[in-house]
Amino acid sequence: MSGLIDKIKSGSHKAIATGASISSTVALKEKNPEQGTVVISQLTGKNIIVGVPGAFTPPCSSQVPGYIENAQAFVEKGVAGIYIVAVNDAFTTQAWKEKLTGGAEAPPAVHFLADDTGAFTKEIGMSFDATGLLGGPRSQRYVAVLDGPIVKQIYVEDAAPSVTVTKAENVLQALN
Amino acid sequence: MSGLIDKIKSGSHKAIATGASISSTVALKEKNPEQGTVVISQLTGKNIIVGVPGAFTPPCSSQVPGYIENAQAFVEKGVAGIYIVAVNDAFTTQAWKEKLTGGAEAPPAVHFLADDTGAFTKEIGMSFDATGLLGGPRSQRYVAVLDGPIVKQIYVEDAAPSVTVTKAENVLQALN
Repeated sequence: MSGLIDKIKSGSHKAIATGASISSTVALKEKNPEQGTVVISQLTGKNIIVGVPGAFTPPCSSQVPGYIENAQAFVEKGVAGIYIVAVNDAFTTQAWKEKLTGGAEAPPAVHFLADDTGAFTKEIGMSFDATGLLGGPRSQRYVAVLDGPIVKQIYVEDAAPSVTVTKAENVLQALN
Repeated sequence: MSGLIDKIKSGSHKAIATGASISSTVALKEKNPEQGTVVISQLTGKNIIVGVPGAFTPPCSSQVPGYIENAQAFVEKGVAGIYIVAVNDAFTTQAWKEKLTGGAEAPPAVHFLADDTGAFTKEIGMSFDATGLLGGPRSQRYVAVLDGPIVKQIYVEDAAPSVTVTKAENVLQALN
C-alpha cells in the first residue's frame, strides 16, 4: 500500500509551523452534518488536532485508537479536546468512530471531524495528492498542539502511512 | 438531510439510457485497492449496477441490504453479478460492506466497488454535485441492468435520498 501514498507533496499553501495562527474559518462536520460543526480557529484553550489520510485505512485505524485510549491522560495534561480530522464525509468519519470505539461513546474529549471538501486541510498546507490510492487530495498525517488558534507544537510524518512522531504516546509525553 | 442533496443536476456527460453501451474503461476498486479492480464495460452476461450517493449514508444503508438479501433470487433470474458502485474510496466501501453484511461474506454475486475519483460515474452521466452534504461530486441513485456493456433497463431516482424505483424488489420483479 505504501507505494501509492508515501510521496508527500503539499499544495501551494504553506504548511503551518510552530508559532503560526490558524485562521481557517472552514466549518468541519461532526455527527449528522446538519447538526454540529467545529471551526478549529475558534477553539479556546489547549487542543490537539490529529490529521489523518483516511478513515478506515489500516495505518489510521491503528493510530487513532491511541488517542481514544489516552484521552483521559491528555485531559489531565490540560487538553480540552482532541480533534481527529480527515478528508472524508461526515457519514464516513462517524461510522469510523463507531467502529473504533466499538459503538460505545468515544471519550468526550475525542471528536471526529469531516473536512469533506478538503478546504481546511488545504488552507493549513497539509493537503497532498492521494489520487492513486484514495481518489483525490487527502490530509498528511500530522498532529498540531494548539493554544487557542496558535500552533504550539507540530508533528508531521514524512510518509502518509507512517505512524512515528504522531503516535499518541509520543505527543502525550512531549506535552507541557 | 434531504434538503442538501435532493436537487440532482448532472454534469456535462449524457446520462446512459436504455440501449446505450457503456464504454468507460475506468477500473473500479474492490477490496484492497492494490488487488482487484473491475471494469464495468468488460463484464459479460447479465449484470446489475447499483449506483449509490454515499457509503454509510442512511438511505443507501437501507437500500443496499435488499440487494444482499435477494442476491440468490437475482442469480436465479440469470444475473451474474450485482455491483454496488459509490464515489468513495475502497477502504470506505469495504468497511461499509463489512458493516452491512455483519462481517460475514457478502453473497458471491454482490460486489462493492469504489469509483474513488468519480470518473466512471461522470462518464456515464450519473455524477451530481453533492458538495453541501458530502463535500464533492457523487453518484445519483440508479440501477442499470446490463447485458455485457449494453444497458437493457435503467432506473434513476429523481432525488438522491429517494429509494423507490431502485429498490431491489422492484428491479427483481421487472427483470426478464
